[in-house]
Amino acid sequence: MPTVKPLPSYLITRYHGWKATTYADNEPWYRNLADNGQNPRAMVISCCDSRVHVTSIFGAEQGEFFIHRNIANLVPPFNPDGEHHGTSAAIEYAVNALKVAHIIVLGHSNCGGVAGCNDMCSGHAPELAEKTSFIGRWIEILRPGYERVKDIENEDDRRRALEKEAVKVSLENLAGFPFVADALEKGKLSLHGLWTDIGEGGLEHYTPEHGFKQV
Amino acid sequence: MPTVKPLPSYLITRYHGWKATTYADNEPWYRNLADNGQNPRAMVISCCDSRVHVTSIFGAEQGEFFIHRNIANLVPPFNPDGEHHGTSAAIEYAVNALKVAHIIVLGHSNCGGVAGCNDMCSGHAPELAEKTSFIGRWIEILRPGYERVKDIENEDDRRRALEKEAVKVSLENLAGFPFVADALEKGKLSLHGLWTDIGEGGLEHYTPEHGFKQV
Amino acid sequence: MPTVKPLPSYLITRYHGWKATTYADNEPWYRNLADNGQNPRAMVISCCDSRVHVTSIFGAEQGEFFIHRNIANLVPPFNPDGEHHGTSAAIEYAVNALKVAHIIVLGHSNCGGVAGCNDMCSGHAPELAEKTSFIGRWIEILRPGYERVKDIENEDDRRRALEKEAVKVSLENLAGFPFVADALEKGKLSLHGLWTDIGEGGLEHYTPEHGFKQV
Amino acid sequence: MPTVKPLPSYLITRYHGWKATTYADNEPWYRNLADNGQNPRAMVISCCDSRVHVTSIFGAEQGEFFIHRNIANLVPPFNPDGEHHGTSAAIEYAVNALKVAHIIVLGHSNCGGVAGCNDMCSGHAPELAEKTSFIGRWIEILRPGYERVKDIENEDDRRRALEKEAVKVSLENLAGFPFVADALEKGKLSLHGLWTDIGEGGLEHYTPEHGFKQV
Repeated sequence: MPTVKPLPSYLITRYHGWKATTYADNEPWYRNLADNGQNPRAMVISCCDSRVHVTSIFGAEQGEFFIHRNIANLVPPFNPDGEHHGTSAAIEYAVNALKVAHIIVLGHSNCGGVAGCNDMCSGHAPELAEKTSFIGRWIEILRPGYERVKDIENEDDRRRALEKEAVKVSLENLAGFPFVADALEKGKLSLHGLWTDIGEGGLEHYTPEHGFKQV
Repeated sequence: MPTVKPLPSYLITRYHGWKATTYADNEPWYRNLADNGQNPRAMVISCCDSRVHVTSIFGAEQGEFFIHRNIANLVPPFNPDGEHHGTSAAIEYAVNALKVAHIIVLGHSNCGGVAGCNDMCSGHAPELAEKTSFIGRWIEILRPGYERVKDIENEDDRRRALEKEAVKVSLENLAGFPFVADALEKGKLSLHGLWTDIGEGGLEHYTPEHGFKQV
Repeated sequence: MPTVKPLPSYLITRYHGWKATTYADNEPWYRNLADNGQNPRAMVISCCDSRVHVTSIFGAEQGEFFIHRNIANLVPPFNPDGEHHGTSAAIEYAVNALKVAHIIVLGHSNCGGVAGCNDMCSGHAPELAEKTSFIGRWIEILRPGYERVKDIENEDDRRRALEKEAVKVSLENLAGFPFVADALEKGKLSLHGLWTDIGEGGLEHYTPEHGFKQV
Repeated sequence: MPTVKPLPSYLITRYHGWKATTYADNEPWYRNLADNGQNPRAMVISCCDSRVHVTSIFGAEQGEFFIHRNIANLVPPFNPDGEHHGTSAAIEYAVNALKVAHIIVLGHSNCGGVAGCNDMCSGHAPELAEKTSFIGRWIEILRPGYERVKDIENEDDRRRALEKEAVKVSLENLAGFPFVADALEKGKLSLHGLWTDIGEGGLEHYTPEHGFKQV
C-alpha cells in the first residue's frame, strides 16, 4: 500500500462549503438519487482535459449524464478478448444496464492527446511509438483518422481535422459493438458527435452529410 | 459510419444559455486556457456514475482538475503489453506530461460497478463471469479487494466495504506504475483516497493507519 | 543597515508547524509551483487591512491569485512619468507578463484609509492635507469619488458610499491604462468590482446598471 | 466607467460556502473585528506572487497582520515629494496609525520581479529600461542591491542573491523613514527580514552578522 497524504486543506474547506450550501439546499434530491438509483438520460464520452466541462456547457444537474472521460475521447474497436477494457465496459454498462437513450462523443480543440497522435503518426514522436508507451498505444486507436487527414499540409489545420476525426472514429467504433448496433436498430439509442472550441466557446455538431457545423 | 441523430433540442438550448452567460462572462479565462494550455494541479479518478460530481464538491473552475472517469474508479495493474489501456494512458499523461502534484481516487456509495463485482465474485452473476462481458472483465480488477471483504456477512456492509476497497486497490495499482513510484519517491506527486456518500453528502478520507474517516 | 531583531518565537513555532503539516502534505504542489512558475487566473487588488482575507473568502489555493494590497485598494491614474509606481507596476506585470484573465478590485467596510479620505476632503484632518503625508497623498486618488458622495449628510452613510467609490474609482483608473484597455477590447481580460462587509460577512458585486448588490 | 463583468460563478459558489462555514463558525470574531477595529501585531511586506502566502506560513487568523504586497516586496527610499506613494503610505499607516510592533519584509525564491531587475541591470532587457515601463521603474529601487551582487557569475546564484538583496534594500530604505527611525529608537518597533524558498518550503531569517539562515 502506498503512502497516502492528507487531502490539501483548501479542498477540505471547499468541501465543507459545498456541504453547507449546495448539498444542504438539495438534500432531498441527493437522497432520492441514492435511494432510487441513477437514471441518466445520456452517456457522454469526453476527454480528461481539465478545460472540457460537459456539465457546465449543458447546465447539467447531478444525475443527468453518465460520463466516461479518457485521453482524446476515444472508443476502441470492439474486441472481447477477456482483457480489461475500461471504455468498452462503460459503454456496455450505459447501454445494457442503464439503457441510456443517447451516447454523445465530445471532442475539443487544443487536445494534447490528438496532437500526440499527429506527432506519432507523422514520425515526429518516436517515444510514443514504443510498445511501452501507454499514451502511444491508446492514441493508436486514432490512426485510421490520421490516414484520412495526413495530406493536409498546414500543421494546425491537420491537428484540428484530426480532433474531429477522433469523434468520427469513436462513432464508427461504437457502431461496431453488437449491443450498440442492436439498440440503434431498435430505435432505443441514438449517437451524437460534437466538437467544442475551448477558446471561442464554440460547439459543432457532426452529421455525415454536412460534417461539423456550429449548432 | 453510423447514422448520427440531431442533438436533442434541450441540449442546444442549454448550450446557447451557457454561451451567453458563463462563457461570455469568462471569455478571457477560456481564451487564456486555449492559448496557454492546461496546468491542472491534480488528476481525479472517479466513477462514470451520473451522481458523482467532483467539480461541484470541490467548487472547481475549468482548468483545475484533469479527470478520468471509468466504471468503479478503478486503476488496473501496470501491464505494458502494447494493447489499448485507457486508464494507464491517462495516468501516464497526467504524471509525465502534465506533472500534476496530486492524484485523487474518489470512490462513492451506491456504486453499480462495485455491486456487480460483489455479485460476480460471490457467484450470483454468471453473466458477468463470461469472457465476453466487458463489465465483468473490468471489475475483475477489484477481485483482490473482494477477497479482503468476502467474509462480511451483511450484504450492504460488504458492498460498502468493497466500494472502499475499490479506492485502496486503485491506490495499490497506481503505486505499481514505475513513473508513479518514481514521482512519489522524488516528492513530486502525492496520492489520496476518498469515498463520498451520495445521499448523505459525506466525504471520507483514507489513511492506511485509520482507514476511512469523515473529513 | 538598520538593526534587525530576532523573529518573534511564536512565528518560528508556527512556521515549523506549517512546514511539518501544510508544506509536507503539499510538497509536490509547491515543487511544481517553483519549477513551472505561477499561472494565476486572476489579479486581486485589495486593502492592507488585516481583516480582509480574499484567499479565505474564495477558498483559494497557493498559485490561484496574484494579489496586490495597498491602502484602500486604490489604483492611481495612468501616469508613466518615470517615477516608482508600485500599483501600476503590479498591474502591468499581471496583464502583460502573467496574462491574467480577471482583475478583481475588492473594497471593504470599516476601511481606515477611506475614513481618512473622508476626513481630509471634508476639512477635518489638516494633517492629511500636508504635502509630507504619504497617507494623505495616496488617498488623494479617491478625491473624485468623494466629490460624488460629499452631499450625503449622515457620516456613516457617506463613509460607506466612499468605500464603494474606492472600488469604482479604481475600476475607472484601471481602464485608463492602455495595456488594460487593449486587453479588455481583445476579450482577454475582464474587470470586477466587489465590496465585503467584515462584520456581516457580506459580499456585494458592482455593475454600472445596478450599483452594488449582494451576490 | 469600464464594462464590468459578472463574477465567475465558481467564486460565488465558494463565497457562499465560506459564508456558511468559516464565517458562520466565527461570526462573533468578525463582528468584533468590525466593531472594535483592527489591531494587528505586525505589518508584512511581501510580493504579489500567487505562490507566497504569509498567512498560511504563519498560521495567521483574520486580524493579525497588516499586509502590503507589491512586486518584489520593495520599499522605495523616503521621498515626500507630494506624489502618490502606495508603499510609503502603507508604512506610515502601519507605524503611525496602527502602531504595529513589527515590520516583516518577506522575500521569496523564483521571483519574477527580481529576475527582471537582474535582466535589466545586466543589459538584457532594454524594454524594462524604458521610462514608460512601470515594472522597470519600480524594480529600479533594487539597483543598489544589484550593484552588490553583479560579480556573481552564475546566473542562478546571482538571482538568488538579488532576491535576498531585495529584502536588505527594503530594510535599509525602511530605516530611512523618519517615523520608522523614531519608533525604532524608542523601542516601539522592530524590523525583520525573511526569505522563503517556495519549492523547499524553507524560511531564512536575516541578520547583519550572519546573513540569511534557515530558522
